[in-house]
Amino acid sequence: MKVAVLGGGSWGTALAREVSNNNNETTLYIRNEEQFEYMKKFGVNKKYLPNVQLPENLEFVNNPLDAIENKDIILLSVPTNSVRSLLDEIKDDVSDDVIIINSAKGIEEKTLMRISEIVKEKLPNNRFVTLSGPTHAEEVALDDPTAIVAASDDLDAAACVQNIFMSETFRVYTNDDLLGVELAGALKNIIALCTGVLVGLNYGDNSKAALMTRGIAEITRLGVAMGAKSRTFLGLAGVGDLIVTCTSEHSRNRKCGKLIGEGMKVEDAVKEVGMVVEGIKTTLAAKKLSDKCGVDMPITNATYDVLYSGASVEESIRKLMTRAKKHEMEGFF
Amino acid sequence: MKVAVLGGGSWGTALAREVSNNNNETTLYIRNEEQFEYMKKFGVNKKYLPNVQLPENLEFVNNPLDAIENKDIILLSVPTNSVRSLLDEIKDDVSDDVIIINSAKGIEEKTLMRISEIVKEKLPNNRFVTLSGPTHAEEVALDDPTAIVAASDDLDAAACVQNIFMSETFRVYTNDDLLGVELAGALKNIIALCTGVLVGLNYGDNSKAALMTRGIAEITRLGVAMGAKSRTFLGLAGVGDLIVTCTSEHSRNRKCGKLIGEGMKVEDAVKEVGMVVEGIKTTLAAKKLSDKCGVDMPITNATYDVLYSGASVEESIRKLMTRAKKHEMEGFF
Repeated sequence: MKVAVLGGGSWGTALAREVSNNNNETTLYIRNEEQFEYMKKFGVNKKYLPNVQLPENLEFVNNPLDAIENKDIILLSVPTNSVRSLLDEIKDDVSDDVIIINSAKGIEEKTLMRISEIVKEKLPNNRFVTLSGPTHAEEVALDDPTAIVAASDDLDAAACVQNIFMSETFRVYTNDDLLGVELAGALKNIIALCTGVLVGLNYGDNSKAALMTRGIAEITRLGVAMGAKSRTFLGLAGVGDLIVTCTSEHSRNRKCGKLIGEGMKVEDAVKEVGMVVEGIKTTLAAKKLSDKCGVDMPITNATYDVLYSGASVEESIRKLMTRAKKHEMEGFF
Repeated sequence: MKVAVLGGGSWGTALAREVSNNNNETTLYIRNEEQFEYMKKFGVNKKYLPNVQLPENLEFVNNPLDAIENKDIILLSVPTNSVRSLLDEIKDDVSDDVIIINSAKGIEEKTLMRISEIVKEKLPNNRFVTLSGPTHAEEVALDDPTAIVAASDDLDAAACVQNIFMSETFRVYTNDDLLGVELAGALKNIIALCTGVLVGLNYGDNSKAALMTRGIAEITRLGVAMGAKSRTFLGLAGVGDLIVTCTSEHSRNRKCGKLIGEGMKVEDAVKEVGMVVEGIKTTLAAKKLSDKCGVDMPITNATYDVLYSGASVEESIRKLMTRAKKHEMEGFF
C-alpha cells in the first residue's frame, strides 16, 4: 500500500517506520523545515527519536500535499486541536477511496468533538480508522513488543490498517467500537491526572489501584450511556492505555497531578509542566458530557472541583471515600 | 456485631484491626503460640505488621474454638490450602446463622476447588462472602485509602460485611458475582508471573500493558465460559488487583517470573523466592479449566509451556506475537 504519515512527532515517526519496514511505500510529512532538512539528510528524527535510524525506503517531505499524492492511506499524527486545520489544508486533494487513520487521542477543546467527528465533517465520504492503546513511541521504535487496536465502524478498513502494520513486534487487533475506543483514549487522561495527585500525596498502591479501577468504571458508564460497548473499556484502548499512562513517569497528566498533590496551585502546576496537560480540558469536557447524559462520575466531579473551583484535594478524597454504600456495578449497564 | 478472625498473618491482622476500629467485638485467633503471647502482651503483630499498634478492644486467642464462640461472623484468613483443615477443626461448633467470610485468593491445589466450594462442602448451610481487591495489608493497616469488594450469592450477607468494615479509609463495594470475583483473584497470579518474566527480560511499559490487558481478556473469557459476569473482571477483584499485583515489587509471583525472565530455571526461581508461588499451580489449574471449557487462553498456554514443558521464553513470546490476526473481542462474549 501507499501510505502518507502527516506529522513528524515521536509517534508519527515511529508509525511511519513500522509501515515502511513492512514494505509499504511510505512518505512522512514534517512541518518544521529545520527538522525536515535534518531528517532528509541523516534519516534520524533528532528532536523526538534521536537514537533511531529510520528505514532507507521512508521518504520525507515538507508539504502535506506532496505527502498525500496518490496515496491509499493517510495517517494523521498531529495533536487533537491541530487536526481541523490540517484537514482544511488537504481535504480538496483527498479522493473518496482513501482510508484516513488517526493516531491522536483527545476531544477537541472548543467543540467537544471526537476526532472521527471532525474527519466526518471535513471528509464525509472517507473511511476512518483510529489507532489507540498502550504505546510509548520510543518503545515501538526500539521494536519492544507492543499491542494496539485499530477501531472503525468499517471492519474492512480496520483490517486493512491491521495488515499494513502487523509484525513480529507490533500486534494489531481490530475493533468495531470506534466510539468506545475514542472515548477511552481521551477520558483516561483524567484518571492519569488524579493518579498523579495521589502520588504527590504519597498514597500507596491500594489507593492508586482503587482510583484507576473506579475511574475506568465511571468512564465505562459514560461511554455506555453514549452508545459505546462496555467491553471496549476492558481492552487495549481502555485498561491497557490507562495502566501505561497512570504508571509512567513520563505522562504529562500524571506529572501535573503530582505537583497539585504536593500542594502547588493548578495554574502553577500547568506552567511547571510546560506542555499541554490534556486531562485538564478533558475533565471539563467529561463533566459536561456526564451532566448531559445523566451519568454519575464522582471522580471526574471531584477532579473538576479541584481544578476549576479551588476545592481542597484532601477534602475531595474524603468525600469520595465516604459516599453512600454501593454495589460495585451500580449504574454499570 | 461479634466477629472472629481466624489467622494472624498480615492480612488477618489488618482486617481484625478494621472491624475492631468500627466497634465490632472482635477476636483474633493466632495459631503460633510465641506470636500469640507477644501480641497479647504488646498488642503488636511483631512478625507481619511490626509498626502498627492494634486497638485495645481487639481480643487475642490461641485456639480457634475460643475465637468463634458466640460470634455472628467468622472471617477466614489462612492460605488457600489450609482452609479445608481449619474448617474441619471448627465446623461442628459453627451454627447455621453465622456468616463465613474468606479473605484468601486461590484455587485448592488437589481438587481445583474455589474456596466457596470448600466452605459449601464443610458448612453447607452458612452464608458465604469473599473479600477481594487491590489491598496490600501493610497499607490498610496504615489507613491509606483502600477499596475492596465483598462478593456473595446472597447480597444481604455481602451488605452485612460491607457494614462491619466500611470507614473513611476502607471503602467496601458489594457484588453478587461470587464466581467471577473468586476466579479473578486466583487467575491474576498467572499474569503477575508473566509480567515478572517481561521485567526480567527488560521489556518496556508497552509490553507489560499489552500482556496485562490481553491477560485479563483471556481470564474474562474463561470466567464467562464458567458462568461469571464479564464486568466483574473490569472491577476491583479483576483489573484493580491485577494492577497492584503486576506493578508491585513485593509480589512473589512477579519476583519468580522476573528470575525466569533473567534466565533462571523454573525450579531454581521457586527455591530462590522461598515462599509459595501461587501462579505456578494456578497456571496448571487454568490450563485444565480452559481445556475443559474449550476457551482459547494463549498467554496461559505459553506460560504452561515455559513452566511445565521447558519451552524457551523468547520463542513463546514470538509465538504469541505472531498468532493469527484477531478482532480484539474475538471469543469474548
